[in-house]
Amino acid sequence: MPILNKDMTLCISLSARPSNNGTRFHNYLYDQLGLNWIYKAFAPTDLAQAIAGVRGLGIRGCAVSMPYKEDVIALVDAMDPSARAIDSVNTIVNDGGRLTAYNTDYTAIEQLLQRNAVPAESSVLLKGAGGMAKATAAALRDAGFKDVTIIARNEAAGRALADLYGFAWRADLGAGPDATADMVINVTPVGMAGGPEADALSFPAETIEAAKVVFDVVALPAETPLIKAARGTGKQVITGAEVATIQALEQFVLYTGIRPTEEQVRDAEAFVRAQ
Amino acid sequence: MPILNKDMTLCISLSARPSNNGTRFHNYLYDQLGLNWIYKAFAPTDLAQAIAGVRGLGIRGCAVSMPYKEDVIALVDAMDPSARAIDSVNTIVNDGGRLTAYNTDYTAIEQLLQRNAVPAESSVLLKGAGGMAKATAAALRDAGFKDVTIIARNEAAGRALADLYGFAWRADLGAGPDATADMVINVTPVGMAGGPEADALSFPAETIEAAKVVFDVVALPAETPLIKAARGTGKQVITGAEVATIQALEQFVLYTGIRPTEEQVRDAEAFVRAQ
Repeated sequence: MPILNKDMTLCISLSARPSNNGTRFHNYLYDQLGLNWIYKAFAPTDLAQAIAGVRGLGIRGCAVSMPYKEDVIALVDAMDPSARAIDSVNTIVNDGGRLTAYNTDYTAIEQLLQRNAVPAESSVLLKGAGGMAKATAAALRDAGFKDVTIIARNEAAGRALADLYGFAWRADLGAGPDATADMVINVTPVGMAGGPEADALSFPAETIEAAKVVFDVVALPAETPLIKAARGTGKQVITGAEVATIQALEQFVLYTGIRPTEEQVRDAEAFVRAQ
Repeated sequence: MPILNKDMTLCISLSARPSNNGTRFHNYLYDQLGLNWIYKAFAPTDLAQAIAGVRGLGIRGCAVSMPYKEDVIALVDAMDPSARAIDSVNTIVNDGGRLTAYNTDYTAIEQLLQRNAVPAESSVLLKGAGGMAKATAAALRDAGFKDVTIIARNEAAGRALADLYGFAWRADLGAGPDATADMVINVTPVGMAGGPEADALSFPAETIEAAKVVFDVVALPAETPLIKAARGTGKQVITGAEVATIQALEQFVLYTGIRPTEEQVRDAEAFVRAQ
């Protein structure tokens, strides 16, 4: 039986459609590390009231998901550079009533580019123009990448994103040399479990074949059609599951001040998957 | 390990100095009844923001303790007669964003007077003039008691309480027939564990001896000096521990719509005491 007590520190998430992943990831690590903390996802009825509750109840940390990542900016006291870089918040830390906003998606992508030692001179095709595409483009720009082309059918969104970071834009991948780059990154829902294009490849086989690094930001499934195809041809791969884990881990570190071991993080990931 | 999940319904309490009792009582019963609910006490930094959080996060129930029982009235949408009778709130129920305030201390005292079949014709000495004395006086008035004397050294508070319910007031117990009644009720901190008068008797031996019913609203310890003395002389007793359990039980019923069995409530009480 879970024996809860009054002194537990609470962290939460706010999302229109919460998944169980954050709740399982954070509670698993609290338990492993012997922290008297609990975590629970919420689907708020009103964002401003929910954030008032974060302050009024002394909730230590608050993950922010769709569709609140931009609206919440007006409700916090300070923006960390990770959130400022993309005007998008996925994490709030409450220090005695002062709320600071972060974006650990940006941080995760930044870390993964470093860890995988992707040279900043690489040419990049980035497919997508939504919030995560913005985080990815900002991380590329801040890591010194210059030869980046945004591929997005929506011209307004695609051009705006490209202009913001000094990148190129094209509506379609095109063919021949246009359709290849050292690194290809999918930030569209293509390949996402449960979506209308769950079985589709987000880049054609020739593009995958020509790339050195294949990065899919789609986290579910961990092995998307793109990642499977890339592994099949021996490419260096970066997965959305890695992004998801690192962004959750960095939230954990921001809230608790404790960095779990790699083994603890792997166990927490396994616990999340065991639902 | 407590396996929490995103779908758990949350109930909370708001108090400047939370005890662990509510957290243990409610979580124990959630577990016994197989409810996917959790309960946690909070010491809010700001009452209005905390209540905004109750709405914004869809928190189902909220216990209210010192010093928020009156201030919270302005923040709810409706007052149940139990709270209206004493202008004091100890329970809020959130029905889809509409907050209704109750006072289950009043309800508990009302139930205990009925269960113990105390005749409304009984003379009553009620010692105290604070919030719980008000709940007790209101329950007595609403149960038809008329011969009630408030004993309170603070004349302003004592007279105000007496006048509100059409009762008498005296600063001191006095002596002789004045110092006796069919029922004596202590609603002061005399006899409370950890207090400056923990070992003191709230009524003199002669008063206890002359009474038929002895009621101590002090809940900790369950066996106060007054209750012990009354049991020693074979009196009918009503304890503050009973008030505490019934008020918590009625909160549980208001939140969940489920009335646990008497055995489950006894087990939950034992779990609370086993801290």
